[in-house]
Amino acid sequence: MNGADRLCDVLLENGIDVCFANPGTSEMHFVAALDRKPRMRCVLGLFEGVVTAAADGYARMADKPAATLLHLGPGLANGLANLHNARRARTPIVNVVGDHATYHLKYDAPLTSDIESLARPMSQWVGRASNSSDIRAKAEEAYVAALSHPGISTLILPADAAWGEVAPEKLTPAEVPDRPAIDPDTLEKAVVALRSGRKTAVFLGGRAVRADALEVAGRIAAGTDATLFSERPARSERGAGRVAVRPVPYNIDLAVEALKEFEVAICIGGRTPVGFFAYPDKPGFLLPEGCEVIELAGVEHDLHGVLDALASELGPDHLAAPTRGQYTAPELPAPTGELTPDAISVAVARLLPEGAIICDESITSSGRFPELAPTMAPHDHLPITGGAIGIGIPLSVGAAVGAPGRKIVTLQADGSGMYTLQGLWTQARENLDVLTIVFSNRGYSILKGEMRNVGVNTFGQNARRMLDIDDPTLDWCSLARGMGVEAGRAETAEAFTRLLEAGLSRQGPFLIEAVI
Amino acid sequence: MNGADRLCDVLLENGIDVCFANPGTSEMHFVAALDRKPRMRCVLGLFEGVVTAAADGYARMADKPAATLLHLGPGLANGLANLHNARRARTPIVNVVGDHATYHLKYDAPLTSDIESLARPMSQWVGRASNSSDIRAKAEEAYVAALSHPGISTLILPADAAWGEVAPEKLTPAEVPDRPAIDPDTLEKAVVALRSGRKTAVFLGGRAVRADALEVAGRIAAGTDATLFSERPARSERGAGRVAVRPVPYNIDLAVEALKEFEVAICIGGRTPVGFFAYPDKPGFLLPEGCEVIELAGVEHDLHGVLDALASELGPDHLAAPTRGQYTAPELPAPTGELTPDAISVAVARLLPEGAIICDESITSSGRFPELAPTMAPHDHLPITGGAIGIGIPLSVGAAVGAPGRKIVTLQADGSGMYTLQGLWTQARENLDVLTIVFSNRGYSILKGEMRNVGVNTFGQNARRMLDIDDPTLDWCSLARGMGVEAGRAETAEAFTRLLEAGLSRQGPFLIEAVI
Repeated sequence: MNGADRLCDVLLENGIDVCFANPGTSEMHFVAALDRKPRMRCVLGLFEGVVTAAADGYARMADKPAATLLHLGPGLANGLANLHNARRARTPIVNVVGDHATYHLKYDAPLTSDIESLARPMSQWVGRASNSSDIRAKAEEAYVAALSHPGISTLILPADAAWGEVAPEKLTPAEVPDRPAIDPDTLEKAVVALRSGRKTAVFLGGRAVRADALEVAGRIAAGTDATLFSERPARSERGAGRVAVRPVPYNIDLAVEALKEFEVAICIGGRTPVGFFAYPDKPGFLLPEGCEVIELAGVEHDLHGVLDALASELGPDHLAAPTRGQYTAPELPAPTGELTPDAISVAVARLLPEGAIICDESITSSGRFPELAPTMAPHDHLPITGGAIGIGIPLSVGAAVGAPGRKIVTLQADGSGMYTLQGLWTQARENLDVLTIVFSNRGYSILKGEMRNVGVNTFGQNARRMLDIDDPTLDWCSLARGMGVEAGRAETAEAFTRLLEAGLSRQGPFLIEAVI
Repeated sequence: MNGADRLCDVLLENGIDVCFANPGTSEMHFVAALDRKPRMRCVLGLFEGVVTAAADGYARMADKPAATLLHLGPGLANGLANLHNARRARTPIVNVVGDHATYHLKYDAPLTSDIESLARPMSQWVGRASNSSDIRAKAEEAYVAALSHPGISTLILPADAAWGEVAPEKLTPAEVPDRPAIDPDTLEKAVVALRSGRKTAVFLGGRAVRADALEVAGRIAAGTDATLFSERPARSERGAGRVAVRPVPYNIDLAVEALKEFEVAICIGGRTPVGFFAYPDKPGFLLPEGCEVIELAGVEHDLHGVLDALASELGPDHLAAPTRGQYTAPELPAPTGELTPDAISVAVARLLPEGAIICDESITSSGRFPELAPTMAPHDHLPITGGAIGIGIPLSVGAAVGAPGRKIVTLQADGSGMYTLQGLWTQARENLDVLTIVFSNRGYSILKGEMRNVGVNTFGQNARRMLDIDDPTLDWCSLARGMGVEAGRAETAEAFTRLLEAGLSRQGPFLIEAVI
């Protein structure tokens, strides 16, 4: 057996049995090895941005990493934007990036580049196998780092390390260190703050926004009058019967307004909020001056355990029955007439099936979703986390592979969707149960708003030609069919509802172009 | 005026009047500034891989750089694969990459990343404006570096440097240093070698493969019995009436065979050939052992001047009338029956109009093009230079903008085409005169060959699902129409010829899906 076989075996031994891939010549021995391991499910993406976002969506749902297979520096580069999102989501991923044989690098062959320099900004661990013998150690290191940080590990696999022979060896699962303990003094500080009656915001993230942990957070909030916030967490379990958290608004003025009264901020998996961008004469740090910040726990901690410990220290006097979402969305009147983001959000809220997974890259078209979320059937919500557009369609690919049997609904802005539309093909190839809703507003609407923010209200030729995508209009139905995904177009709320009902009642991929 | 205005003015003052762009929020002030400069032509790409390849194609044809506008680290990352190709083509490009305001970086806002680390592998110059006052100096430095290296300059533009005020100032064109002189001893060595009767290969690249320089190289080759080679030069002028050069084969065995007899190699803009990849027990350096290598001139030199100097030193006894391509392709019988890469190459060779520009990402489907090229109407040939797939469609966008009035024919492999198919939309938006031929073989054929090279002849489930893209089949006509480009499908040579005639006789974009 060779180094590539060893790498596959180490991945499988540690439970990594899905590989999202777009291979090239330098990875042929690894492809041949994968071909000898039918236990590994290989999912092809026709572009690496699909591959990496799929690995992100998979791990968010499966709660374990997938591997990716990427071809040299350019293949990695194509996947970096969605690795950036995964980095912000703190998603564990093990990237395998092929490279030239070690002795070939000196020739600076056409595809040679500095892979480490490309990998580092988006990876918390970067390593390189020097030969077939150290592949096991490097692969285990990559895996352990991905889990314990958690985050992205990038393992560079030179072709000669892949094709070099290795001696048979018995593998065992790698040892992942226990999650770190929290500092008891910081816990005490949080308890004191929550008991003090001072206006307190709790910033949740990571596993703290799963239903069971939220239940504990909700009891704390109800018993102490604290407010629960979260900001683009990788995966929230939300909807009816669950404790709702408030999002921090994207708009800087609204965010400052929402946070202005808080005297204490406690971070439990969430970060203290900062401006998505800087604006002249507006703050970057969004909490009011003088607000005390208590960094209790990060995503590397056992956040459910941290919340339990906090509740236990607070004691029954400071706990109360939490407020849970009520399943009232189905009672909303069906939207009629003009198709708008609000109408779409109401239509989806009414009909979303229990256990659905929303992959959310709706950007400016989220309509009433933030407000309606707690009233919808219980579901998972997977948003864009790092602001690198082009995540929605391929994130749904990974979510579907990671959570078979559940309906995926992708809320997809059109400008962003064009970045990685190739993911529709993988939806068709794998017959994934994904309903994609494209918000076809035919422009980079968010940028038009930002232009107004910088004082430009009348757009000239150059601005219009950089912010409008209406000439020609994109025909999303045609694009979807070109990749084997059935599609329909809706221009009224009634037509949208009909297509939505049709899309939800069938299995397999379907796309609705919602002209808004 | 602000820093963004200053940057636009510096670009315009130095003749950069085309900006391929996909902006984001952090670049809004730059967009507003561009909007105040109607002299600057802004061309939107719906994905940054389109933007960077378009800038490459533009500069290859216009012989001057374009600017790109990219959004932060992820926007740059999306453009890196085609910047890799541009780097290998030694194309001058000035990238403008927006970043957060300098004082906002410390908050590690969601879109923050290490832009320098991402930029360096593909750029020969990376710089960052520290405030609005140093934008002029940095922009001029970027421009001069792009021209004199030549290659890619990446200028990072923090939002506060863009929006900060600057005092009015009179601009003048930046001073670009003269091209370096060649070493007279090396020239003498080349003269001695060419006169010696030893078997000599001349590796041409850069401007040495333009018609006028080739004419000189051809006289030298005819007078000394040297052989002219070139390897993926950025832009060759070739076809009838021009001196032909031999390509170095991609296949390692064929390359070694083609080069085995040479005793001397002289590099004039070209590099000594190395294996595209390493293979077990095959050489990386392709010239035979003991072959003398004379590095006479690189792309930074005045290559036409170098060839003139070489010819002058050689003297009339070692110069002769060159062999030029004869315009015989139209006499070939029209292909009939099965549609194959050979049939397509014959059909195109017969009908290609004079002055056409071929953007070539045909990969395994090049058919008889290498052999027929000298017999076709005089044309320019722009190949994929760095092996990072996904260049063809957007390269044609830039070539069309850089050479208005000329017909572009894009030879596009299907797997590679899917990487940056968004470029078709820009073809439609700008009404570019591009005929795209998609070789629809529904697989990564090059990888199937490479799998056989590593000894795998029977593919299992995992290999098939990573190398075939036939389930579902891609409908390229539907994809093209989805982006506003008319298209037709051909399944026979006769049908292909009819569509080719139709596509060549109209203005504006058209796509032929050639099912092979």
